[in-house]
Amino acid sequence: MAAETTKSNPIRFGILGCAEIARKVARGIGLAPNAVIVAVGSRSLDKARRFIANNGLDADAVRAVGSYEAVLEDPGVDAVYVPLPTSLHLRWAVAAAERGKHLLLEKPTALCAADLDRILDACRSHGVQFMDCTMWMHHPRTAKMRELLSDSARFGQLKTIHSCFSFAGNPAFLQSDIRVKPDLDALGALGDVGWYCIRSILWAADYELPTKAIALQGTVKNEAGVILSCGSSLLWEDGKVATFQCSFVAHMTMELVVGGTHGSLRLSDFVIPFEEEKAPFTFGSGLFFNELVTGWQILPSMHIVTTSLPQEALMVQEFSRLAGSIRDSTGKPDDKWPTISKKTQLVVDAVKASIDQGYIPVDIVG
Amino acid sequence: MAAETTKSNPIRFGILGCAEIARKVARGIGLAPNAVIVAVGSRSLDKARRFIANNGLDADAVRAVGSYEAVLEDPGVDAVYVPLPTSLHLRWAVAAAERGKHLLLEKPTALCAADLDRILDACRSHGVQFMDCTMWMHHPRTAKMRELLSDSARFGQLKTIHSCFSFAGNPAFLQSDIRVKPDLDALGALGDVGWYCIRSILWAADYELPTKAIALQGTVKNEAGVILSCGSSLLWEDGKVATFQCSFVAHMTMELVVGGTHGSLRLSDFVIPFEEEKAPFTFGSGLFFNELVTGWQILPSMHIVTTSLPQEALMVQEFSRLAGSIRDSTGKPDDKWPTISKKTQLVVDAVKASIDQGYIPVDIVG
Repeated sequence: MAAETTKSNPIRFGILGCAEIARKVARGIGLAPNAVIVAVGSRSLDKARRFIANNGLDADAVRAVGSYEAVLEDPGVDAVYVPLPTSLHLRWAVAAAERGKHLLLEKPTALCAADLDRILDACRSHGVQFMDCTMWMHHPRTAKMRELLSDSARFGQLKTIHSCFSFAGNPAFLQSDIRVKPDLDALGALGDVGWYCIRSILWAADYELPTKAIALQGTVKNEAGVILSCGSSLLWEDGKVATFQCSFVAHMTMELVVGGTHGSLRLSDFVIPFEEEKAPFTFGSGLFFNELVTGWQILPSMHIVTTSLPQEALMVQEFSRLAGSIRDSTGKPDDKWPTISKKTQLVVDAVKASIDQGYIPVDIVG
Repeated sequence: MAAETTKSNPIRFGILGCAEIARKVARGIGLAPNAVIVAVGSRSLDKARRFIANNGLDADAVRAVGSYEAVLEDPGVDAVYVPLPTSLHLRWAVAAAERGKHLLLEKPTALCAADLDRILDACRSHGVQFMDCTMWMHHPRTAKMRELLSDSARFGQLKTIHSCFSFAGNPAFLQSDIRVKPDLDALGALGDVGWYCIRSILWAADYELPTKAIALQGTVKNEAGVILSCGSSLLWEDGKVATFQCSFVAHMTMELVVGGTHGSLRLSDFVIPFEEEKAPFTFGSGLFFNELVTGWQILPSMHIVTTSLPQEALMVQEFSRLAGSIRDSTGKPDDKWPTISKKTQLVVDAVKASIDQGYIPVDIVG
C-alpha cells in the first residue's frame, strides 16, 4: 500500500470498528486511486493497533484511535467507513453525518427504513455523501449487464427475476456471528444475504419498486428468533414477478436469473465474483428450440468482464469521487445511492413484515 | 430408419394423432433399439399419410389409419404413443388400456389427478405399462445428477430448489396453439412448461411430495382464462422450500438450481439439452469464499454428460423394455413411472387450486 503516499488529494478515511469485513474494504481503500486510510477507531486501542499491523497499513500514516467518537472529531478525516453491527448504524451514522463526515455504510444500512431515513436526513442536512457497501454494484460486469437489460431489441420487457444467495455458516458462525444475534443484527440472513438478493431484483427492475411483498412460507429462525433462512415473492403492477431465497444454512449459491420478453441473463456469482480479475455471465437473446425440439438453435453466450481493480476498490473510488467533489468544489451529495439504499431497505422491511404477520401480502410504498 | 427392419422383436407402436411433438417421438422410436412404429392414426387418413411421408417413415411398414379407434383395434400394435390435446387424454388413454395397449402418454397426463387416476386404474386393471413423456428423466445426465444429490457427504440435506421454464410464444402460438385453448389444454403454461418445473422439483426432492403449494401472485391468463404465466412456492414439513416460474410470454429460460447443506447443482437446459449429444451441469461442494471474501476458494465444476441416443429415444427404449417384459415374459407393469406422474399431477392440481382460490395455501395429499 505504498502507493498511498503518491495519491493526489485523496479522500481521507476513518474506519469505525475492526470487523472482519473491514479488512477487505481497507484493502479496497488502499487500491482506490483517490482514497487513503488515516485512522482506525475501535473501542479498544489495542485492537485498532492490531488491525493496522495485521492489514499491512502504515503505522506512521494511519492513526490508531481508542474510540469511534475520536475518529469523528478528527478534522483530518473526510469520510468514515462504518462496518459496525446494524443495531449501531443509526447512532454512529447520524453522528458521522453531524460531524460532516461522508458516510460509507455497511449493509444492511439500518434495522428498518425509518431508521435509514434518519441517517439519510442527517446526511442531507449536513451535505455529506451517503453510500452503502453493496460492492457488486460497482463491478464493470454490472454496467455491462445493465447495458444488455436496457436493450429493448435484445432483452425486451422484463418479466421474471429469481435471485438466491446462501452460504452454509459453520457452527461457530451460527453460534456467535453478529449476524445471528438479535441485539446486533436483528435482520439476520434477510439483512445480510437477503439484502443482496433484493438489491439484485431492484437492479434488474431498474429500481422500479415492487408494489407488494409476500414472503415464502418456511422461514427458519434460530432460538433467539433471528432469521437464518427465508425468501419472498415480489410483485409489480405490470405483472413482473420476482422471487428470492436467502440462507445461512444452505450451501453457497449466488444465482441471478433475469428473464425478459426477448432475452435472458444468468450468473452464478453475482455478489462475489468467482475470481477477482474477471467475472462471467451468460446472456441469450432470441433463443429457441430447433425444429424438432431436440436442441437449441442458438445457445446463450458467455461473457467475461475483466477489471483492473476489485469491486470494493471501485466502490471506494466512486464514493471518494462524489465525496471529493463536495469537499473540493461546489458539488452536492448525489442522491442516486441513498435512493437505491432506501428502496432496498423498504423491500427488506416489507419482507420482514410479511414474515412477522404470517406471510400476508405487504404493500411497499416508496 | 432402415435400422428398424433389423430390430429383434421390438415393441410395435401406434401413434394416436399427428401433433408436432409426435415428429420428435417418432424419430425417437426409430432410434430406440427395441421399438418400431407400425401405425399412425389420425382423424384424417390423408394427414396420417402425410405424417408418414414427411417424417421419413417407411410407407410399406407403417400403416396410415383414418381413426384412433382403428389403431387401438389393431392386434399388431403393442403400445400407443398419445400426443393428443390434454382434454382427450382421459378418453383415449383409458380406451388404449382397455384394448391392452401399453401407454406412452404426453404430458400433462390429464386435466386433473382424478382423471389421471382413472387412466392409471385402467392401466393397472388391464396389465399395461404406463409412462408419461417427460423425456429429460431418461437422459444419462439426470442419473449422474441424481448420484451427486444422493451423496450425503458432497450434497448433504436438500434445502432449496428453484426451477424455471419459459419460452416466448410467437403471436401464432399465443393465438392458436392447442396449449392456449381452454377446450383442448385447459392447464395452459402450468400443464405444459410448469409440468417440467414441478417434475424437476419432485425429482430433486427424490419424489417426496411437498405438503403445501402456495402459488405466486401475478398469474397471467389469456382472454379465455388459460394460464400463460404463473409460479408457485412448494413447501415440505422439514423446511425444504421450492419455487418455480413458468411462462409462454417470457424469453427462453430453463434453469434448475438445487441447494443442499453441503453442495449445490445448477443447469440451464434441464428440459431440452442445448445439444443432443452432450449435456452440461455444474456442481459444487464445500464452496466458500476466500479469506478476504474477494473471490471463491473453490469454483463449482462443470460436468458434461454425453449420450449416444437422444433422451426421447432413451425414454422409448425404457418404456419398451418394460412393455416387452410384460408382453414377452411374466413381467408386471412397473409402478415407478405412474407414481411419479401421479405426484406431478397432484402438485399441478394444487398450484391450480391455489391460483383459482386467490393464492391460498393448498394442502397436497398423496
